[in-house]
Amino acid sequence: MDSDFGIPRELSPLQQLRSQYQPELPPCLQGTTVRVELGDGTTVSEASDSHIIARAFPHTLGQPLAHFLRETAKVSDAHIITQLPSIRVGIVFCGRQAPGGHNVIWGLYEALKVHNAKSTLLGFLGGSEGLFAQKTLEITDDILQTYKNQGGYDLLGRTKDQIRTTEQVNAALKACTDLKLDGLVIIGGVTSNTDAAHLAEFFAEAKCSTKVVGVPVTTNGDLKNQFVEANVGFDTICKVNSQLISNACTDALSAEKYYYFIRLMGRKHSHVALECTLQSHPNMVILGEEVAASKLTIFDISKQICDAVQARAGQDKNHGVILIPEGIIESIPEVYALLKEIHGLLREETGMRLFFLLLHPESDDSAQLSQIETEKLLAYLVETEMNKRLKEGTYKGKKFNAICHFFGYQARGSLPSKFDCDYAYAMMTVKNWSQNAGSTSTSIGRPAIHPAMVDLKGKAYELLRQNAEKFLMEDLYRNPGPLQYDGPGADAKAVSLCVEDQDYMGRIKKLQEYLDQVRTIVKPGCSQDVLKAALSVMASVTDVLTTISSSSNGGQQTA
Amino acid sequence: MDSDFGIPRELSPLQQLRSQYQPELPPCLQGTTVRVELGDGTTVSEASDSHIIARAFPHTLGQPLAHFLRETAKVSDAHIITQLPSIRVGIVFCGRQAPGGHNVIWGLYEALKVHNAKSTLLGFLGGSEGLFAQKTLEITDDILQTYKNQGGYDLLGRTKDQIRTTEQVNAALKACTDLKLDGLVIIGGVTSNTDAAHLAEFFAEAKCSTKVVGVPVTTNGDLKNQFVEANVGFDTICKVNSQLISNACTDALSAEKYYYFIRLMGRKHSHVALECTLQSHPNMVILGEEVAASKLTIFDISKQICDAVQARAGQDKNHGVILIPEGIIESIPEVYALLKEIHGLLREETGMRLFFLLLHPESDDSAQLSQIETEKLLAYLVETEMNKRLKEGTYKGKKFNAICHFFGYQARGSLPSKFDCDYAYAMMTVKNWSQNAGSTSTSIGRPAIHPAMVDLKGKAYELLRQNAEKFLMEDLYRNPGPLQYDGPGADAKAVSLCVEDQDYMGRIKKLQEYLDQVRTIVKPGCSQDVLKAALSVMASVTDVLTTISSSSNGGQQTA
Repeated sequence: MDSDFGIPRELSPLQQLRSQYQPELPPCLQGTTVRVELGDGTTVSEASDSHIIARAFPHTLGQPLAHFLRETAKVSDAHIITQLPSIRVGIVFCGRQAPGGHNVIWGLYEALKVHNAKSTLLGFLGGSEGLFAQKTLEITDDILQTYKNQGGYDLLGRTKDQIRTTEQVNAALKACTDLKLDGLVIIGGVTSNTDAAHLAEFFAEAKCSTKVVGVPVTTNGDLKNQFVEANVGFDTICKVNSQLISNACTDALSAEKYYYFIRLMGRKHSHVALECTLQSHPNMVILGEEVAASKLTIFDISKQICDAVQARAGQDKNHGVILIPEGIIESIPEVYALLKEIHGLLREETGMRLFFLLLHPESDDSAQLSQIETEKLLAYLVETEMNKRLKEGTYKGKKFNAICHFFGYQARGSLPSKFDCDYAYAMMTVKNWSQNAGSTSTSIGRPAIHPAMVDLKGKAYELLRQNAEKFLMEDLYRNPGPLQYDGPGADAKAVSLCVEDQDYMGRIKKLQEYLDQVRTIVKPGCSQDVLKAALSVMASVTDVLTTISSSSNGGQQTA
Repeated sequence: MDSDFGIPRELSPLQQLRSQYQPELPPCLQGTTVRVELGDGTTVSEASDSHIIARAFPHTLGQPLAHFLRETAKVSDAHIITQLPSIRVGIVFCGRQAPGGHNVIWGLYEALKVHNAKSTLLGFLGGSEGLFAQKTLEITDDILQTYKNQGGYDLLGRTKDQIRTTEQVNAALKACTDLKLDGLVIIGGVTSNTDAAHLAEFFAEAKCSTKVVGVPVTTNGDLKNQFVEANVGFDTICKVNSQLISNACTDALSAEKYYYFIRLMGRKHSHVALECTLQSHPNMVILGEEVAASKLTIFDISKQICDAVQARAGQDKNHGVILIPEGIIESIPEVYALLKEIHGLLREETGMRLFFLLLHPESDDSAQLSQIETEKLLAYLVETEMNKRLKEGTYKGKKFNAICHFFGYQARGSLPSKFDCDYAYAMMTVKNWSQNAGSTSTSIGRPAIHPAMVDLKGKAYELLRQNAEKFLMEDLYRNPGPLQYDGPGADAKAVSLCVEDQDYMGRIKKLQEYLDQVRTIVKPGCSQDVLKAALSVMASVTDVLTTISSSSNGGQQTA
């Protein structure tokens, strides 16, 4: 939080090369003319929540969805904007750092300047605290030089990830008013985007002209819906972790005597663990969503692992790699409660703390989750059970050996992948999306964005289930290798992104093409037979869609 | 240890590309003609050990050093070998896996075949146990296809890293005799190369014609002398770890509230930690060699870190990255003893083990070292002290927060760097080197190769000391990025390798050039003045060198 920010720094040869990389923009964002098609008003994904959301967001809910068009798009009522006034925008890092964050700033800076060279971008120094204190740094190309395509949030820094209390919200309002900002861009994850949505509403009510924009940048991959297919940072995190998981797989297969229990960051949901499994093919993964859906206890999970170890030993395999998502612990309520209680006891008895390092006692509640060494707990339970089976003679394999690893903070600061560089650079156009994101949760007294969970009916999970038995028994380890910027793998996309039907807007376009084709075929002059067939079929189509639409409560969560 | 070995497997796109990479051979190993210059007999680095070594290695000590020559070398008494008989060689992985191990096999296979297509290479399956049980796999180009330039030891596997007991040594002798091997190549680290040296002597005494060859492949970088400048695997390990350390540095600088305590593997000595520090510039590293030299206690070390934290807080810096080498714990005898005692107590009280995960109770003594969570112990001590200083008012900075990481097994299985691919592929020529390696230690009753320690008078350490204060205070973090195979950084060598005067043979050649020049200048016909000056100077040179040589006890440890 001082004058160190924005100072040029020495880059390694690879960093230098990366700093010269120019991300690609999608066609709709190229050039100086903006073409926008306004769609339906934003709605709520769960109809049952709609009155709560409507009450919480009277000024911001229901605004039309903006759809940016490429130059060649034929949309008759598109808004075409060729001249944009100069504007002043503020930007703030407001969540845990994710690779690509710097490119959001760079992309926004370039976009502002290309439309009007007099526009200004102010970075808030030191996160939300810098916003409240109005500590700013005007972004220039010089300042960006050594931060383009680089990891971390160190250009501006970040502090508390919160703009929530009355005091905080008022300080933000004062900052935006004092600095005459036309827009405030908040870069963050689920929590920060919830804050952004509430702040937008608060500003609208206060008749503050600053537009609030939330940008989904989070390594957890849990901030998505049909309009936001991926989060900035997720691709890099999964690639860095998959490299390390693959290395552990190779190691396990070479030594043939260890089971690696690897815990992965990712908060409550298991997107990172699922993606890494699809990239690296470790023997086993236990997703928090599976645990929750099947109401598994910690002993169920440990038994599941024991049975796997025993089955593998039957094939002379005494090694393996098992992924444990950070959030699994939250899905096993009895363990979470127990550990919290133990933690409370430990605080009282500080003399014993030297050894009680299962929980780091000084963290706040959210950080604490990543401090719970679930992998060690599970390894211990499995070891105990395997020793018991060995003694009883029900298990006849070799002595079970576990080595535990936590792949946590070592990926977050990575140089971003090409995907994240490109995606983050183009991200500045996702505006006001947060109000209509995913489903909402009102459990904490005010509506909040609900982190997307792994869809146990989705294609990515289906792919995992189809291969789970083979991954478990056959050691089909796959090593994507270290993150590359050139050659094979450099342009690889996340597996879960590729297999899911993600292209919502693309599929809407496809439907429109079908409708146009029908219109072209069935016009005055066509045969009676064609007309008759078309009428009959379209009547059925309309019937079916009407029925489906009403039974799904008019929700738009179709993807 | 079954029929799974040598089976082709599916490679990721990057692995496929790498499998097609052809390592470069140094000029002296190119072509089908071998040119060897035989040098002085092998001696012992510590004169005081010489009688012990001579007694332990009566048959193998004192053999001439072989120096391979390039085609253009002008050495009058070089042995030139153009035809080599077909030979049978066995190869076994006999230590902890290190990136590049597979290339030693590939390089040896190619070398055997290029000199005589009828030569045979047999891989022992499952390490030394496979050697004793005579389980072999004949290496072919087909089998090598998906293992070229790949990490791990999974082509052949490995088990116990030991060929030491009478039973083991006899089993090895029987295997080599039964299989009619002309050579046995043992791929491993310090321990395995000690075993190789003793095995060579044992074979020579038993008049077994199998030559034993040790190849220094170890991630620890502790197996070196003037003839062996680096170990296969060290370059990759340091690059993978430096990437992760740099990511943690970026993360620390972004969040500005954590101290990362990162423990690195590397056994007793701190080569990996030193090299990673020179590549990544974290704030602080504590080398085992420094601790031993200054006889630091755990509290001295913790105080040193506390003072650093306090000094940084004075500059408004509440974050940092501190590297803790695995071997530091061995350098603090009182802690090591204490932890072993605690560990003994824990074994008795199994009910408490759930929380006592500081030590993994099932490991053997050597594995245990990597299980001692020194980083957590230090973080705890620093936190306690900082809290005390805060309470007393001597420290006025922010609350100290530590996050601990262990960078252990996740690097060992990595795809090897280009350096390690090339180096390992060419490595097959380092023959019988183990008897004349480094210094020896006789503490365990028989002479053993002493792992090389970080030279506190060496240039790499000097470079660290010169920059230590700047690294500590100024956050000059350097991010080499993920291991690349193309573009900047792909050909980077280890910093410690570049700064040390490593090129022993090159410098001997340089000296010979000087002598030749003097001979050319001072010949019949030169002036009296020239002759007089030359005589005077050379007399001094001879004097000085004679004095130095006798005072260093005739040791050859000059590098």
